[in-house]
Amino acid sequence: MSTETEDRPVLLVEEHARAWSPETARARFREGLTGPTAGVAAGHTQANLISVPADWAYDMLLFCQRNPKPCPVLDVTDAGSWTTVLADGADLRTDLPRYRVWRDGELVDEPTDARAYWRDDLVSFLIGCSFTFEWALGEAGVPIRHVEQGRNVPMYVTGRQCRPAGRLHGPLVVSMRPVPPEHLAAAIRESSLLPAVHGSPVHCGDPSGLGIDDLGRPDFGDAVDAEPDDIPVFWACGVTPQAAVMASRPPFALTHAPGQMFLTDARDEQYRVA
Amino acid sequence: MSTETEDRPVLLVEEHARAWSPETARARFREGLTGPTAGVAAGHTQANLISVPADWAYDMLLFCQRNPKPCPVLDVTDAGSWTTVLADGADLRTDLPRYRVWRDGELVDEPTDARAYWRDDLVSFLIGCSFTFEWALGEAGVPIRHVEQGRNVPMYVTGRQCRPAGRLHGPLVVSMRPVPPEHLAAAIRESSLLPAVHGSPVHCGDPSGLGIDDLGRPDFGDAVDAEPDDIPVFWACGVTPQAAVMASRPPFALTHAPGQMFLTDARDEQYRVA
Repeated sequence: MSTETEDRPVLLVEEHARAWSPETARARFREGLTGPTAGVAAGHTQANLISVPADWAYDMLLFCQRNPKPCPVLDVTDAGSWTTVLADGADLRTDLPRYRVWRDGELVDEPTDARAYWRDDLVSFLIGCSFTFEWALGEAGVPIRHVEQGRNVPMYVTGRQCRPAGRLHGPLVVSMRPVPPEHLAAAIRESSLLPAVHGSPVHCGDPSGLGIDDLGRPDFGDAVDAEPDDIPVFWACGVTPQAAVMASRPPFALTHAPGQMFLTDARDEQYRVA
Repeated sequence: MSTETEDRPVLLVEEHARAWSPETARARFREGLTGPTAGVAAGHTQANLISVPADWAYDMLLFCQRNPKPCPVLDVTDAGSWTTVLADGADLRTDLPRYRVWRDGELVDEPTDARAYWRDDLVSFLIGCSFTFEWALGEAGVPIRHVEQGRNVPMYVTGRQCRPAGRLHGPLVVSMRPVPPEHLAAAIRESSLLPAVHGSPVHCGDPSGLGIDDLGRPDFGDAVDAEPDDIPVFWACGVTPQAAVMASRPPFALTHAPGQMFLTDARDEQYRVA
């Protein structure tokens, strides 16, 4: 389930994409540009998208409330609305690089424009993304290996179950960043101050503690090369609702493609608690 | 709407109530003890209660998500359940000092036991309480005037409207603590690190900035005496959902009485982000 090869090199090698405004990024994606968004419109908050029929909205909102580390909710739209208070003039149906369409828990399409799948009863959840705390980590001097290597962040389905909510259940998904030991304290401190975008790590070190067998084979995104002393650090990941969709099989869901996020107008520092 | 006079002296003058376990506090309240809970079972997290019919639960959860400073959700029960993961063996129908019962937005009763009003379709929301960050403020040396004076914290309905959600709308309610200028930085810093219990203040200084006319006449709780140099500091308050009930008139709601909270088993420091 890793990102298609053709997606990979598009954005991260485009150094100027860091300096884009969120409006420019959304416009480029609306025109059809695809690829992982790590580093794009640097300093602006990125968000995971999951849209479900209104009949499932309470279960999803409760699932998020009961699992705030993987699912910190930044905004919830009214049913049928494709606008959000987080981004002036944005269209949630077109402005992400790539979508995933789910029927009964099965991935059925990965379009770059979701208008053909839109429904009047869809409630959209925008969920905090770890790309936001990468800004804070970078400011604190922590190297971000997957960005250095021009790759999507690696994500893994863990053996830990989320707390269920109504009809929704599923495993915790994590993102992983190899962190040099001398930067570990800063990585933990800086992400802790951003609880709205996953907050502190859920695990550090041996991946078997999370039921992950092989860091070289992520379930989403790309494997990343670590330096010998690097410690793998795991943060709860906003792909968790997609894993809940796979496990719980609602009749319909629309999500972002892993790593290909929605660019909001919010500034990352707005979510810093102190 | 201030707390009845007979409530006031019960607990705060009982110094030993600070040392109670949460279980002991809940048992005493179950037996009929009433009064403000500031300082009771010190170090344990207190929560606001609001229970609404399942038909209104999505609106309430969305209202909380859209207004996270006044309404940080710590737990949501399944419909009809009076238990919570936050307190082993607790009964939400009996274990608070005093309840408020609302019909069509009107306060109709203030019982000490809510079993006669319980409904099988009630969904209960436990919402973070500023009494939690009082612990952190106290640790940092910030004087807590209303505790020193044996009073309930003063609470005010402001002129600011919350972001509406479905059928729910209403004004922001705040609690106020007079803080000596030399302690203001600590008060802001310490509360900022507890975003799950209202986080940083919403306003400091002139109360007219929030549309509050007279600090001596709180809408809930007791007026508190300030020292001449004290700065009034205003935090978003978990009574806000009650103000939404008054404004939005759902057919039924059950809440705690202002200042008379639910004692959880959680430790305040669990909610500290760093």
